[in-house]
Amino acid sequence: MAVYTDISETELGAFLARYAIGGLLSYKGIAEGVENTNYLLRTDKGMFILTLYEKRVDRNDLPFFLDLMRHLSRRGVNCPLPVPQTSGELVGELAGRPAAIITFLEGMWMRRPTVEHCRALGSALASLHLAGLDFEGRRKNALGVRAWRPLWQLSRARADEVEEGLAAETEADLELLEGVWPRGLPEGVIHADLFPDNVFFLKGRLSGLIDFYFACTDILAYDLAICLNAWCFERDHSFNLTKGRALLQAYMDARPLSADEAAALPVLAHGAAMRFMLTRLYDWLMVPEGSFVVKKDPMEYVRRMRFHRQVKSAAEYGLALENAG
Amino acid sequence: MAVYTDISETELGAFLARYAIGGLLSYKGIAEGVENTNYLLRTDKGMFILTLYEKRVDRNDLPFFLDLMRHLSRRGVNCPLPVPQTSGELVGELAGRPAAIITFLEGMWMRRPTVEHCRALGSALASLHLAGLDFEGRRKNALGVRAWRPLWQLSRARADEVEEGLAAETEADLELLEGVWPRGLPEGVIHADLFPDNVFFLKGRLSGLIDFYFACTDILAYDLAICLNAWCFERDHSFNLTKGRALLQAYMDARPLSADEAAALPVLAHGAAMRFMLTRLYDWLMVPEGSFVVKKDPMEYVRRMRFHRQVKSAAEYGLALENAG
Repeated sequence: MAVYTDISETELGAFLARYAIGGLLSYKGIAEGVENTNYLLRTDKGMFILTLYEKRVDRNDLPFFLDLMRHLSRRGVNCPLPVPQTSGELVGELAGRPAAIITFLEGMWMRRPTVEHCRALGSALASLHLAGLDFEGRRKNALGVRAWRPLWQLSRARADEVEEGLAAETEADLELLEGVWPRGLPEGVIHADLFPDNVFFLKGRLSGLIDFYFACTDILAYDLAICLNAWCFERDHSFNLTKGRALLQAYMDARPLSADEAAALPVLAHGAAMRFMLTRLYDWLMVPEGSFVVKKDPMEYVRRMRFHRQVKSAAEYGLALENAG
Repeated sequence: MAVYTDISETELGAFLARYAIGGLLSYKGIAEGVENTNYLLRTDKGMFILTLYEKRVDRNDLPFFLDLMRHLSRRGVNCPLPVPQTSGELVGELAGRPAAIITFLEGMWMRRPTVEHCRALGSALASLHLAGLDFEGRRKNALGVRAWRPLWQLSRARADEVEEGLAAETEADLELLEGVWPRGLPEGVIHADLFPDNVFFLKGRLSGLIDFYFACTDILAYDLAICLNAWCFERDHSFNLTKGRALLQAYMDARPLSADEAAALPVLAHGAAMRFMLTRLYDWLMVPEGSFVVKKDPMEYVRRMRFHRQVKSAAEYGLALENAG
């Protein structure tokens, strides 16, 4: 839930004068997205999302994110389309913050994804990766393997407050992951945050992907590893092999994994769990009470780290080996 | 900002099966309202507001609120219309909470109301009072003059944490108000919380009134006194006489005040400031950090109390005396 910045009708009116999206009928702050402030705008031409980029987003990255959405949308990926100002600009300024308008996507995110949802996700993820192949923009993953140690340094001293021994456990895993992190695997545009709340479904079909503000250039199979973490564990922290199999199979139907990618999957999944554990741990320890950031339990991802640490091969995630190249 | 309760698409689907509002296309938690959780629903038949009533709302009061909205809407007041289930029921249950669907009103609330907005408010408030005259429901004002002392007891011991001397000042004002609180003035349905965020405007015209969850049977002129507090003070805490005059004049054009009502206005306005000061003070002192309730500064209303305390007659609010009956 996040509306960090209230805007007046006067400010908004002046901002909207730069767009050709019709007369404003209403705007409401919506409780979605953790990083930015989002308003749902209704005009006589339809519905739109207005995003004010708060301080966690680097203004210099905005052209990458918005150009990417436009590129993917043109390649047939259902994602929001940035709406340009009449001048052609995609990014404006509102209430002292960079701001953009994107199209509204219908659909709902699944609080409890099923096997079928995981299957649809696998196909959509492969389509996203394929559509991104000829995208020219590049952005380093600001939360990639090289960023984990500096992030860890910020929480390490207090990690044992969350669970006794967590500091030593994380330190050991981090060292391990840095040592074995794969090189030379196919890279491209990844979403990097494709959790259930960023995937919309309508009448049982996947209707769109949203929130590209962590997108970057990184190992494609790492994106798949993030999805395994985000979609295929149950509330009791157990891995659901049927969901893993559905996700991986659907992905490979459109983009088969190489033998190297398949072999790297346990390390990538372990790394993905580390990445989300580290940001959650940081927020848990550092974000003051009373802020609007909803803190998520880092232990959920510590448990996933423990699971991935003992995985021997991608078959344990449901990968049918005969399909790996 | 308030989304206290997340709901799953499965729960929502089961709930919506009881309504004839079309197929669900999206639902988003909206950051409006302090007491309840609100979702904006979009179906193939239009847009609706789904409200889950959280613990501050008494379930037994819901028929009063919803019947009132229906009554006012039929009398031509632009307010949300409750949407019945196919069974005719206005209140259902969702995620363990009473829940209702109401129509969506277009328009925006004014962060910085002008004199013209105050004028439009005055007319709308009078229309609301007149339309409510033949409403049969009755509800005691749970935050009326008799409720102030019990509320005050909960904060009194810590009031001086907010400002040295506030406890003694409030105690004296409360005693004064209880002594002189008017009796025998015309009563009827009042909104009781008609702050700017509950009044929508579209293209410069007042387009609707929302949030009837404090509505009750009380002194009509007290509602006007609440609006004087909520609309006619500037950010520097000064009273804007031009706004007061516009509000009062527009109200009296539709519903003239009696001489008794006019004479009581300073006490009613003083009491209204006390009422909002007390709830703000309670939240300020008692609501834990990190909760989603946005705390508002009680001192804003202490300053209004001080202003009203020295007002000698309603002329100081801009009331043209020749218009008072």
